[in-house]
Amino acid sequence: MNETARSAAQPLAGIRVVEISSFVAAPLAGMTLSQLGADVIRVDPLGGAADYRRWPLTDDGTSIYWTGLNKGKRSVAADLRGDAGQQLISNLITDSGPGGGILLTNTVGREWLDYDTLAARRPDLIRLEILGRADGSTAVDYTVNAAIGFPLVTGPAEHAGPINQVLPAWDLLCGLYAALAITGAVRHREATGEGSRITLPLEDVALATAGNLGFLTEAMLSPTPRPRLGNAIYGQYGQHFSAADGATFMIVALTSRHFHALTELTGTRAAVDALATALDADFTDEGARYHHRDVLTGLFTPWFRDRTGVEITAALEQTSILWERYRTFHEVVADPRVTANPLFAPLPQPGIGTYLAPSAPASVDGAHASPQAAPRLGEHTEEVLREQLHLSSTDLAQLREAAVIATGD
Amino acid sequence: MNETARSAAQPLAGIRVVEISSFVAAPLAGMTLSQLGADVIRVDPLGGAADYRRWPLTDDGTSIYWTGLNKGKRSVAADLRGDAGQQLISNLITDSGPGGGILLTNTVGREWLDYDTLAARRPDLIRLEILGRADGSTAVDYTVNAAIGFPLVTGPAEHAGPINQVLPAWDLLCGLYAALAITGAVRHREATGEGSRITLPLEDVALATAGNLGFLTEAMLSPTPRPRLGNAIYGQYGQHFSAADGATFMIVALTSRHFHALTELTGTRAAVDALATALDADFTDEGARYHHRDVLTGLFTPWFRDRTGVEITAALEQTSILWERYRTFHEVVADPRVTANPLFAPLPQPGIGTYLAPSAPASVDGAHASPQAAPRLGEHTEEVLREQLHLSSTDLAQLREAAVIATGD
Repeated sequence: MNETARSAAQPLAGIRVVEISSFVAAPLAGMTLSQLGADVIRVDPLGGAADYRRWPLTDDGTSIYWTGLNKGKRSVAADLRGDAGQQLISNLITDSGPGGGILLTNTVGREWLDYDTLAARRPDLIRLEILGRADGSTAVDYTVNAAIGFPLVTGPAEHAGPINQVLPAWDLLCGLYAALAITGAVRHREATGEGSRITLPLEDVALATAGNLGFLTEAMLSPTPRPRLGNAIYGQYGQHFSAADGATFMIVALTSRHFHALTELTGTRAAVDALATALDADFTDEGARYHHRDVLTGLFTPWFRDRTGVEITAALEQTSILWERYRTFHEVVADPRVTANPLFAPLPQPGIGTYLAPSAPASVDGAHASPQAAPRLGEHTEEVLREQLHLSSTDLAQLREAAVIATGD
Repeated sequence: MNETARSAAQPLAGIRVVEISSFVAAPLAGMTLSQLGADVIRVDPLGGAADYRRWPLTDDGTSIYWTGLNKGKRSVAADLRGDAGQQLISNLITDSGPGGGILLTNTVGREWLDYDTLAARRPDLIRLEILGRADGSTAVDYTVNAAIGFPLVTGPAEHAGPINQVLPAWDLLCGLYAALAITGAVRHREATGEGSRITLPLEDVALATAGNLGFLTEAMLSPTPRPRLGNAIYGQYGQHFSAADGATFMIVALTSRHFHALTELTGTRAAVDALATALDADFTDEGARYHHRDVLTGLFTPWFRDRTGVEITAALEQTSILWERYRTFHEVVADPRVTANPLFAPLPQPGIGTYLAPSAPASVDGAHASPQAAPRLGEHTEEVLREQLHLSSTDLAQLREAAVIATGD
């Protein structure tokens, strides 16, 4: 990595963010800002926030989840219920130099962290608050997802009842929208001197996304509900197929070229042509391929059913078809796409040991930064308070003794 | 909205992005940058890119999907296969003023759009390329998802085979990572004068995310695969319940307080206490609530089964429990959370009519910008070429006649 790459890879160098957070969205936002070069200080209550012991855990009780979402941050632990701790952390937010004055939080209803309270002391404050809903009420990824529509169209057509997505997609999107809003606000502040008061409700992330993708618009315009499609792709030809040995494959034909390759592979060219004539269907049109998906799938199925996963893989590799074999997480981590991927690097993580950790997915000049370990809780309490608030060893000893702060355990 | 809010809400004002894209990730990135105030010019081949007619469609063939993901952009249509069109669009990318020189694309392998080709003409170029995989091979959301592990742990425990998520979560996350990387690169360029060459593989977005959330780390550390959990939440107590009338509810108890409220609601306090004693389980611990989830669910089920959705809703509203009723997209769009939500505003969209469209989910000073219509294909071809490349009416007429450009149809 040359000098240009190193610095273009850290575009938020000089920015300092105080994060008071838990769970996924806000921690991901902070970690993402850190990966872009910001100094992100996660402030937790003594003993840790509600996510500090969240599963999965190692045998000694370290949270794999927490360490995964807090890589590269500094950790300050303080008594956030008492006046002294609140005063200290308020100071840390507002008295943190020209690149500071940025608060990222998902803790609602704490007066001492209000925009007005903090902006009275630092007018160029950037404050981003993640809410459950716009009215300030609580919602989490799992409840937002239930209310948005996707679980009732997920899974096999014959299934009744909801199927939740396992990926906390709304939290993740919310975290990235938050990181983006803060990065934009930094540019605005550097140009104008003005801060920003930003509100980001998790539910609105889901609603905006469902709107942007057309799910809501379609429901506004048409009385016909979109059906449960199993693993088919709405408006395109895509389906999963099972091999003789139980391996499963996702097959996608977005274009006529892909579709042609699929009929060649499965030796169904003549049958597909005959079907096109009999059904008066133009299979060069993606809508026709979608409309007639069931009969097409029935036609392609035997080719997959009569071959092993290895045979199917070898054959698909010779084609332009978009495909993947469904894999377990254990298969994923043993694959060179992880083990030989520069996105991953060995990371010595206290409490976990050395494991292959991802850095940020975007690379600059083809290079990835090394992933950084998550802190121990309170690991940087004294370092940060010395450096940012110029507290002395005596000050720190008194705060420690009064249980206003805690240092790394 | 006061003056400060208006400008803090448009932090990317003065930035100009040329987007050559299709489908979800790159278009969402461009739209998101536009929502932050950037001038985003989507350049398409004559007749539109592969996503221009993607379902859902209106009766007259307008894509609800395309219009949803391209709101607020300007559209230029040009012959991207011929030298004249390529020269024109190259000029548009490089000769676009101090805020320009930014290319967002997911079209791989076009030499005229290479970083080196363009940066030779504009050294401070910011170029972000979205790839399928890091090696440049093709992958789409559906194939990436198959290969990452989630479909094999989604859905009912007794289900065999993969269940795809309906939400194209990897595309969406990729789009937001792209918007963020470009915004960071803008800050870097404004500070140093240096451009950025950024690569973002869709597959690496999925791998990094699965790593950050601990799914991959857990698989590296433990030989035991995480089971299919149905609608339960790993490591927490959460489950869906069905009402007497078929309504379904997602119920989440993240904390002891939530769990206590759930036992009170369902009148199972004594039974839960007896279970805790008999099983030697401490239900103040989230791990114990997760471990014993099946018996707890069995205990809570009759309360839901004996009541209607309306009765359950009324009762849940009096508690601190995290909950939602599962809703269809049609129920969502009829709800005040959409119809009375300032996130949505009536948008007159050519080809669709006026519908409630979302703006960006983050609000500044509590205000949302109005959503902007998607362009007609080529609507701004002449406007943009006049303004950016100072072409005359004669120039434009010649280009039109030679089928190098097209204007709005």
